[in-house]
Amino acid sequence: MSDRRRAILEGAARVIARRGVRGLRVSDLAAEAGVSTALIYYHFKDRTGILRHALAFISDRADRYTGAAGEVGAAPFAAPPAADPRRLLERILLLEFQDLPEVRENSTAWGELRAHTIFDPELRDELTAAGAAWAEEVADLLAAACPAAPGAAVTAAAERLTALLEGLSSRWLSGLLPVGHARDLMRGAIGIEIGRLRSLTT
Amino acid sequence: MSDRRRAILEGAARVIARRGVRGLRVSDLAAEAGVSTALIYYHFKDRTGILRHALAFISDRADRYTGAAGEVGAAPFAAPPAADPRRLLERILLLEFQDLPEVRENSTAWGELRAHTIFDPELRDELTAAGAAWAEEVADLLAAACPAAPGAAVTAAAERLTALLEGLSSRWLSGLLPVGHARDLMRGAIGIEIGRLRSLTT
Repeated sequence: MSDRRRAILEGAARVIARRGVRGLRVSDLAAEAGVSTALIYYHFKDRTGILRHALAFISDRADRYTGAAGEVGAAPFAAPPAADPRRLLERILLLEFQDLPEVRENSTAWGELRAHTIFDPELRDELTAAGAAWAEEVADLLAAACPAAPGAAVTAAAERLTALLEGLSSRWLSGLLPVGHARDLMRGAIGIEIGRLRSLTT
Repeated sequence: MSDRRRAILEGAARVIARRGVRGLRVSDLAAEAGVSTALIYYHFKDRTGILRHALAFISDRADRYTGAAGEVGAAPFAAPPAADPRRLLERILLLEFQDLPEVRENSTAWGELRAHTIFDPELRDELTAAGAAWAEEVADLLAAACPAAPGAAVTAAAERLTALLEGLSSRWLSGLLPVGHARDLMRGAIGIEIGRLRSLTT
């Protein structure tokens, strides 16, 4: 990605987190990113194009700081061995709760894009695909941790865990839940879902 | 509540759901409710007063359509006997997923008020208190369904169930999850949490 393209998408994530999708004006974004509005239209065609690419950018960034992209970075948990699917799963989900500006901004922007979709379906397909890819990644790790569990039960557990994460995340971001407590609840849910999947057999 | 006071709060919930807290202008609210801005200031003092009372109004309305207030109304599920805490709990939680304009508007406005709290703490205490009261109500029913379970485990289960509900609700409202599937996942989570609480003993 070119530096200026990246600067525009970083600026878009920042503005969406701070002012919502309704508050994203292309002229403000140009000022935020230090480029001309013409350059923004050249790269992204229109406002919907900006939103689509911002969504993909935010999603890639989350994969990076949760280690889902295979990178370790400055994550506060040591990377578990690839052979331990339960610990890999805990890592990927718990790293969504880090009190870092980048993580807070990213999760806030994601919530704003999802809330925007209540009234405007322009991003619905992208959000559905991103949600499905995320649930599938979680389901793959659950299936590796619980090889005898039926596929439908694994899929439902993955959907519950990702939806719970979004619910806890928005409480944490709003200051209604301390980050450590959010992590404890998430870790508890992973243990309960895995315990139950291990009690089932195909 | 006087008719005009109610009309203002109904208008506030509608405007917040549609345009977010950032989009709530007192002049627009006056037009929406068919009253003067002076009357709004007389009843609610300032914008924060409007938001606080709108939050309480939205919370009471949710208690009504989920039957938590003890009313039955036009709910799509028959009221279970009061002696069956598990079915009461399912009822209260599943009635948050009803494809009715009032329920959608109420849940959307609630999400906007919570998102607003990321940047402005003015409603944090009220949201914390409302969330705690809701989790306590769920915990009471879980404790009645699983009398031998330790209190801390019951509290954590209640926090997870209410956070999961918020996560599923925002996916449903955004059109990312069909209402029936959201209900199935919620019902599954209630069963799993109760099954686990019953396996624990104080």
